[in-house]
Amino acid sequence: MDFPQRFGVIVIGGGHAGTEAALAAARMGVETLLLTHNIETLGQMSCNPAIGGIGKSHLVREIDALGGAMARATDQAGIQFRVLNARKGPAVRATRAQADRILYKAAIRHALENQPHLTLFQQAADDLIVEQDRCVGVVTSMGLRFHADAVVLTAGTFLGGVIHVGMENHQGGRAGDQPSNALARRLRELPFRVDRLKTGTPPRIDGRSVDFSVMEEQWGDSPTPVMSYLGRVEDHPRQVCCHVTHTNERTHEIIRSGFDRSPMFAGVIEGVGPRYCPSVEDKVNRYPDKTSHQVFVEPEGLNTHELYPNGISTSLPFDIQLAAVRSIRGFENAHITRPGYAIEYDFFNPQDLRHSLETKHMPGLFFAGQINGTTGYEEAGAQGMLAGLNAALMSQEKAPWTPRRDEAYLGVLVDDLITMGTREPYRMFTSRAEYRLLLREDNADLRLTEKGRELGLVDDERWAAYNDKREGMAREQTRLSATWVRPGTAEADQINALVDKPLPHEYNLLDLLKRPEIDYHALIGAVGLEPEAPPVVEQMEILAKYAGYIDRQEAEIARLRAAEHQRLPADFDFGQVQGLSNEVKQKLAEVHPETIGQAGRIPGVTPAAISLLLIYLKKHQHRAARQA
Amino acid sequence: MDFPQRFGVIVIGGGHAGTEAALAAARMGVETLLLTHNIETLGQMSCNPAIGGIGKSHLVREIDALGGAMARATDQAGIQFRVLNARKGPAVRATRAQADRILYKAAIRHALENQPHLTLFQQAADDLIVEQDRCVGVVTSMGLRFHADAVVLTAGTFLGGVIHVGMENHQGGRAGDQPSNALARRLRELPFRVDRLKTGTPPRIDGRSVDFSVMEEQWGDSPTPVMSYLGRVEDHPRQVCCHVTHTNERTHEIIRSGFDRSPMFAGVIEGVGPRYCPSVEDKVNRYPDKTSHQVFVEPEGLNTHELYPNGISTSLPFDIQLAAVRSIRGFENAHITRPGYAIEYDFFNPQDLRHSLETKHMPGLFFAGQINGTTGYEEAGAQGMLAGLNAALMSQEKAPWTPRRDEAYLGVLVDDLITMGTREPYRMFTSRAEYRLLLREDNADLRLTEKGRELGLVDDERWAAYNDKREGMAREQTRLSATWVRPGTAEADQINALVDKPLPHEYNLLDLLKRPEIDYHALIGAVGLEPEAPPVVEQMEILAKYAGYIDRQEAEIARLRAAEHQRLPADFDFGQVQGLSNEVKQKLAEVHPETIGQAGRIPGVTPAAISLLLIYLKKHQHRAARQA
Ligand SMILES: Cc1cc2nc3c(=O)[nH]c(=O)nc-3n(C[C@H](O)[C@H](O)[C@H](O)COP(=O)(O)OP(=O)(O)OC[C@H]3O[C@@H](n4cnc5c(N)ncnc54)[C@H](O)[C@@H]3O)c2cc1C
Ligand SMILES: Cc1cc2nc3c(=O)[nH]c(=O)nc-3n(C[C@H](O)[C@H](O)[C@H](O)COP(=O)(O)OP(=O)(O)OC[C@H]3O[C@@H](n4cnc5c(N)ncnc54)[C@H](O)[C@@H]3O)c2cc1C
Repeated sequence: MDFPQRFGVIVIGGGHAGTEAALAAARMGVETLLLTHNIETLGQMSCNPAIGGIGKSHLVREIDALGGAMARATDQAGIQFRVLNARKGPAVRATRAQADRILYKAAIRHALENQPHLTLFQQAADDLIVEQDRCVGVVTSMGLRFHADAVVLTAGTFLGGVIHVGMENHQGGRAGDQPSNALARRLRELPFRVDRLKTGTPPRIDGRSVDFSVMEEQWGDSPTPVMSYLGRVEDHPRQVCCHVTHTNERTHEIIRSGFDRSPMFAGVIEGVGPRYCPSVEDKVNRYPDKTSHQVFVEPEGLNTHELYPNGISTSLPFDIQLAAVRSIRGFENAHITRPGYAIEYDFFNPQDLRHSLETKHMPGLFFAGQINGTTGYEEAGAQGMLAGLNAALMSQEKAPWTPRRDEAYLGVLVDDLITMGTREPYRMFTSRAEYRLLLREDNADLRLTEKGRELGLVDDERWAAYNDKREGMAREQTRLSATWVRPGTAEADQINALVDKPLPHEYNLLDLLKRPEIDYHALIGAVGLEPEAPPVVEQMEILAKYAGYIDRQEAEIARLRAAEHQRLPADFDFGQVQGLSNEVKQKLAEVHPETIGQAGRIPGVTPAAISLLLIYLKKHQHRAARQA
Repeated sequence: MDFPQRFGVIVIGGGHAGTEAALAAARMGVETLLLTHNIETLGQMSCNPAIGGIGKSHLVREIDALGGAMARATDQAGIQFRVLNARKGPAVRATRAQADRILYKAAIRHALENQPHLTLFQQAADDLIVEQDRCVGVVTSMGLRFHADAVVLTAGTFLGGVIHVGMENHQGGRAGDQPSNALARRLRELPFRVDRLKTGTPPRIDGRSVDFSVMEEQWGDSPTPVMSYLGRVEDHPRQVCCHVTHTNERTHEIIRSGFDRSPMFAGVIEGVGPRYCPSVEDKVNRYPDKTSHQVFVEPEGLNTHELYPNGISTSLPFDIQLAAVRSIRGFENAHITRPGYAIEYDFFNPQDLRHSLETKHMPGLFFAGQINGTTGYEEAGAQGMLAGLNAALMSQEKAPWTPRRDEAYLGVLVDDLITMGTREPYRMFTSRAEYRLLLREDNADLRLTEKGRELGLVDDERWAAYNDKREGMAREQTRLSATWVRPGTAEADQINALVDKPLPHEYNLLDLLKRPEIDYHALIGAVGLEPEAPPVVEQMEILAKYAGYIDRQEAEIARLRAAEHQRLPADFDFGQVQGLSNEVKQKLAEVHPETIGQAGRIPGVTPAAISLLLIYLKKHQHRAARQA
């Protein structure tokens, strides 16, 4: 049957990509359907119970700035919060939270169930409805047909999923869940480039069988950070301790003794795994000289004894898993509750996507999350947000939107994927962003809230908080630049105590704040002023202290932006450009970038090559213009 | 590989039967392994979010008296509690609770994770290890071999599960879960009699799309009851309201219009469904004159909008489900979040079981729960308890134990199943118990705690509470029978106010309490005594008021017990017994009861027939004795 209501957007899959996609489209007022295998697994964390980390928390805060759920759910479910790289510059600073799995799922489900314009339906999507090459709906496993203007597919690791433990394997979407085989078969009939990737997870351990007393303790930070711009420490549940232990030479020996039965080394697994989240057998193999690797022992939640031993993801046979685990300090008597495993699944070449995450080959169909070759909840959530909002824009007959690389990690992520494709699961790092001093986790709200508001993604509460912060910053900027400290005054004496040499002449506070030795609160205290709200203070301080670098990056962006967006004609023949190496010509021909900016990001395409291209284009356009 | 540790008991399946079985065996100090598909679904309620009800709460309290988890989990998860049949006699009084699904699962998982001697392992059991016709272990889907003295199988609706919605069907263990096909195939190779049953569930509805204002409210009882003997009202979470609405003639018309696409009526489903939990199409079909059926609108939990519309279980096609739901008052704009469906699954003829729930054909293998042809969480939990404790007894090399029909509903349940078998999903009713005045929900603790303690199932806390109650009862019995009221005293005047005619002579309080008009508290108040604790008072009152009936049932039991256990020789030829009808002879030959008691419970075997049997046996034994 045809379902009586027509939707603006249908999202397939209730993982991290799917929930952000569905929430975003619905927030924009578009009638949205979220179709998922099992309402009980909405927002389920397939692997480690943690959100954030370097590069990743940047994405979480961008999702948050656009009104998404991930950061707020983390604040409600986080049982340990830490700021990573706290001593380094603000560009690479990142927040990471351990989450209680059950609380996290509950927070996500609560958000979904209470979102106006959003409808949930539990059932597998088995097919797409295609009319004149356009995707216009979805068919469920019981033959129910849902129609919509746009469809977002976020099937995660479920498409043709195969689970491996040693030489044994069976079909599954993740442990305990069925795979999506009907849909995978159908998608393979369509003109998408499909390949296989793999990812893995460690065995879980019963905490009652672990000796924590021989492990290092790791507590969360104090004061406790929050993840969302609207988060409060009071939202957090009880905070707990984590532990650290290590593999040793015996562990590595045991692991090596299982290499002949490793599905990865034996070639049973064809998919490539995540380079930056390698399995423990990978680490032992790649770094034969390392005698020890860290294992972070993370609780799976407040009300369970299950532990996640972060660092020993594996698909070795179970006997090796058990022996290896029990060779680790503190794990001598460990009981494994769930075996580690690897999963292989279908993903689609993201080079077949537009920046909006719409597929090039099938208008109306968007792809987001793990199926685009990424790994991680945050990468999935970010893509879900983008695909969801663009699907909603399509339903509203509006132009798509994607942030630029200098506006958001979201922009970097999508641009990387569609420009370069990926041969291994892609994860975010701060090093992937050229303008990372501008794309900080502390200013994601300043970068994106306004756009989010315009798109209809940002509610009044968030909008008010954003405006308060903006106004506070403007007010403070004025106040600090209008407040002068003159040598010889009592204020100057106080400030002289903070610096090497006494102030030689009068300065305003903004200039003083730029000095590394002078901290905002000391400065404000010295002149007897009341401090602004903490979010304002944070910005004032960063903007002052890093003003030089920030200005330089902004200037560079301005310079490049013109060229960046300069388009390359669809029929452009790179062979014609003189001076380019054959290798570069080949790469350009393969990717066929739409713009100079894209061209520049193809690995191996050097700045010199870009210059040659620009020169050629100038001539060429000139000629084209004359001919016209 | 062979798992290094050998277990006393392995339980397959973490549903209601499996969790009670595993907890029971572990409480008895036997090393126990619970092997289940998915740790996240431990204790999941597949269908309605409610525990208890008539006949069923009796089982729950018996499980509780033996130290089980179901009642305590209900106290921690129940969001509405009611006493059913409160105005009727204590035999049929029953407690029923709506439960928050997520809290219920959490409570069960908490009990499992914190039970000493119990080990959890997430993985499908694909095969049994059989040595010399004895079951000695289990093989998981990744080839891991666990060895044990005894194995309890509790696979619920998962064996060869097929899910039906209209003419569409697919394999599944329940919506969102994979079926157990490998194990089902394997079991069909073994000498068990396998057949198919089916059960169904209604569509779930988004509460935001429902108009509650036109429905009748239904609140829980006040004071709020508890389910466990150790339960306290303070254990309960927030209590909520339920609602009642009704189907109408239009609903029935819509349902009839789908009959030709009903998998049940079209013969696609072969399995027989539960007679007392019929689907709505069944009800409409069977009672064509009824113009309306009740629909209880039950919340699925505190933090979800999903509703369970109790009374409209269905496997009609989705278009009919949607139209039928929307024809119901208050549901005019209802959105269905999960379609209703029926599931067909393999069950084993329980006549192939011993009273201990060990299978006759394979020593060491026990069956419990839905796979024995029952329906309901409580029936499953009760069998799990029994199978678990008997598996543990086997591991301890002790004799099995099963309560008699006059000791517990547990005894009635098992005896019914193995004596009569079942052709449709069996559920418990008070009417199934001959001695239901003795088998009350209020005295399950008095009936079973002592045996539970002896078996090692009952912990110190429960044992102390039981002894307090027993001592209180003894004390009160003594006090009431030693306290006399003489006519003419102030006490007598007070009591005369409660009764029709003034007391003609002196009475002790126990005799006075037997009078229906005299309530314990009024009586105790009249003579200026302090009342005993409420559990003691409840017993004193019931024992006094129903003394006549209770004595009669006890006498009957004593009379029958001798004959009940009188054994029928294995080669007994029923054809020899003169006076038996051919029908009765045939039935007896078919079932071949082990005892006179069993013979008497075969439907159609009349008390007269039993008398003939007894007479024949007397002669026969006489002759046998003479011959020996
Ligand atoms: C074993 C394993 C190990 C992992 N290890 C890591 C790691 O080390 N590091 C890391 O960063 N990330 C890891 N991940 C990845 C992380 O889980 C994913 O990146 C993230 O969950 C992806 O989110 P998603 O929304 O794309 O997909 P998922 O979270 O997989 O969600 C997919 C959703 O779609 C639903 N669905 C699928 N098909 C259908 C259909 N046909 N119809 C209806 N619903 C459907 C599913 O039920 C599910 O709800 C691992 C994942 C797995 C399974
Ligand atoms: C659709 C539906 C409708 C129902 N309707 C009603 C109703 O109207 N009234 C009523 O009283 N009851 C109803 N029930 C029945 C009720 O759910 C069951 O009676 C009860 O859950 C049975 O408990 P159980 O422990 O026997 O099995 P289940 O609760 O089904 O649990 C079985 C467990 O075993 C696990 N398992 C199965 N196979 C394996 C394996 N090979 N290896 C490892 N683990 C395995 C499963 O994952 C699951 O955890 C319904 C059930 C379903 C599915």
